[in-house]
Amino acid sequence: MAGRSSNRSIGTVAMRWHGDRLELLDQRLLPAEEHWIVADGASAVAQCITDMVVRGAPAIGISAAYGVALAARHAGGGDWQAEIKQAIRVLAKSRPTAVNLFWALERMEKVFHACHSLDEATDRLAAEAVRLHEDDLAANLAMADYALEVMNPDKPIAVLTHCNTGALATGGYGTALGVIRRLHEEKLLKRVYADETRPWLQGSRLTAWELTRDHIPVTLNADGAAAAIMASGKVKWIVVGADRITANGDVANKIGTYNLAVLARHHKIGFMVVAPSSTVDMSLESGKDIPIEEREGTEVREIRGIPLAPAGVQVFNPVFDVTPASLIDAIVTEKGAVRNPNITGMRALFT
Amino acid sequence: MAGRSSNRSIGTVAMRWHGDRLELLDQRLLPAEEHWIVADGASAVAQCITDMVVRGAPAIGISAAYGVALAARHAGGGDWQAEIKQAIRVLAKSRPTAVNLFWALERMEKVFHACHSLDEATDRLAAEAVRLHEDDLAANLAMADYALEVMNPDKPIAVLTHCNTGALATGGYGTALGVIRRLHEEKLLKRVYADETRPWLQGSRLTAWELTRDHIPVTLNADGAAAAIMASGKVKWIVVGADRITANGDVANKIGTYNLAVLARHHKIGFMVVAPSSTVDMSLESGKDIPIEEREGTEVREIRGIPLAPAGVQVFNPVFDVTPASLIDAIVTEKGAVRNPNITGMRALFT
Repeated sequence: MAGRSSNRSIGTVAMRWHGDRLELLDQRLLPAEEHWIVADGASAVAQCITDMVVRGAPAIGISAAYGVALAARHAGGGDWQAEIKQAIRVLAKSRPTAVNLFWALERMEKVFHACHSLDEATDRLAAEAVRLHEDDLAANLAMADYALEVMNPDKPIAVLTHCNTGALATGGYGTALGVIRRLHEEKLLKRVYADETRPWLQGSRLTAWELTRDHIPVTLNADGAAAAIMASGKVKWIVVGADRITANGDVANKIGTYNLAVLARHHKIGFMVVAPSSTVDMSLESGKDIPIEEREGTEVREIRGIPLAPAGVQVFNPVFDVTPASLIDAIVTEKGAVRNPNITGMRALFT
Repeated sequence: MAGRSSNRSIGTVAMRWHGDRLELLDQRLLPAEEHWIVADGASAVAQCITDMVVRGAPAIGISAAYGVALAARHAGGGDWQAEIKQAIRVLAKSRPTAVNLFWALERMEKVFHACHSLDEATDRLAAEAVRLHEDDLAANLAMADYALEVMNPDKPIAVLTHCNTGALATGGYGTALGVIRRLHEEKLLKRVYADETRPWLQGSRLTAWELTRDHIPVTLNADGAAAAIMASGKVKWIVVGADRITANGDVANKIGTYNLAVLARHHKIGFMVVAPSSTVDMSLESGKDIPIEEREGTEVREIRGIPLAPAGVQVFNPVFDVTPASLIDAIVTEKGAVRNPNITGMRALFT
């Protein structure tokens, strides 16, 4: 932990670990309903990730780690190693784009390979998952420090964000939303404009909900209003999270992020990506190599079963887009910030 | 009429005139339900415009003209002139941004002032409203001709559009969507990408519905996916309508249009505005002078009464944004096209 008290003000969490089960807040039902789903095994956790009960790259990684811990906890007396390996395989298939998932599973796998008995694996994998969760929270707090160094505002500013990158998307506090929390704590935040973030509406359903609970001033807007907001001169920074960052500094993040990066550059507004270093994938050269998940057209055609479009109309529903490094002013992680990211700057910090 | 048969393939209309009443398709209920509202007087028409039963700048103007005709038709035996004047005042207050409304009312007012009796006014105002409606349809067909001259595609292309500018938004055929219809008729259309167009979802509810009925290939996308679509190289032109065009070529149109213009320029994709000359307001110097309507936050916070965001969260909900002329490749009207619009080019065509 970074030793700061700032996380104590957070009004919500995405998950609760109970040793023999993981409780996940069903983010599909927010803000209407706060319903917790109990996952008592790795398959249940994987299903929750696939179905977006839990979402947000860091929260997906943490949940998967707990999933591995549960696989050990509930392994039968037979080939416990095969059972855990199988659980890791199932979890790895739950979502394709966020690299934190694979990073978390690798970290768990390393511990698993060092274990000589099921008892040892049960204890050590649970401890590792908790540590991974705590590390993520600490990383959030550290990256907020670095982000404020980059922004260095001399008076309160307004910022615009996309999707949800807060306590609900991480181990607590948040990545981009953590930076916004820190601005608020330092009395340097005038207001957050939150893109509603279609189709899944993470902005209106999650970000507005999370910020409202914590009394952080938020204004919700349709994604299409972002350019008008920027043209008005109201916002100084666009702050977003990431699902995967490649060796050259390209960033895959929630669909619509790339729009904002182009708009920010046009309006000479800062564009900052905030993510833990576990989101960085130095094995991929550029954004072209990132697998981009496409989801069901019903996410665009319907809302809560109500048709918004003619039945069966073709839909293009990519979950992420790729923002080229050239449009990014800073990538901020718990290891520090890379300004005007390129392969040299990325290598200096991440190898 | 332009003498083309192309409008005959259109599967829907926004309004039906019956002499003593105007029937308006309730566009708020599409695509789930096709319900017609009967407006039997000017106030009822004004309310339908305010409530967005009918929307789209040209359709608003035509509806208002029929509203004036109805005011004459149903005027009492007393001071019929005062009654019609009052009806025009009520209609003028129904929506603030689309200038077609004021243009249509002025055209009706001129006829009204030339009338010497209520009988004469009843006949002539009804005839003028029908003529205004027919003129709009003819204008749509003519602007499609000019638009294809500008585009001049040598093989089928894909385009992206925003909001609904089709038969539902006009007297029939459409402005930007009319151009798309024409491309389709000429076998020069590969596919239309339709922004769903939050918050009112004109793209998914109306454009996708209208195009599907007419068997024009359409792919629906969240507004935030537009940049990814452009980056993929799939679309050659962005084609949109307008609610008001000022003397320097600035364009007010549905919120999100300005986003697309910035994105199109970044991706070196053509950006075309298609509107009847009644949308041009040479009395305003630039987009800064256009009154931009803001509507209730509930349009963003809820859908069909279902909460999408925390109750009462602040919302910025402008209905339109302003695209500067410098980002527009061509403004196309029934009088011709202004390429790379500026005050000189605009004056040459519109004064």
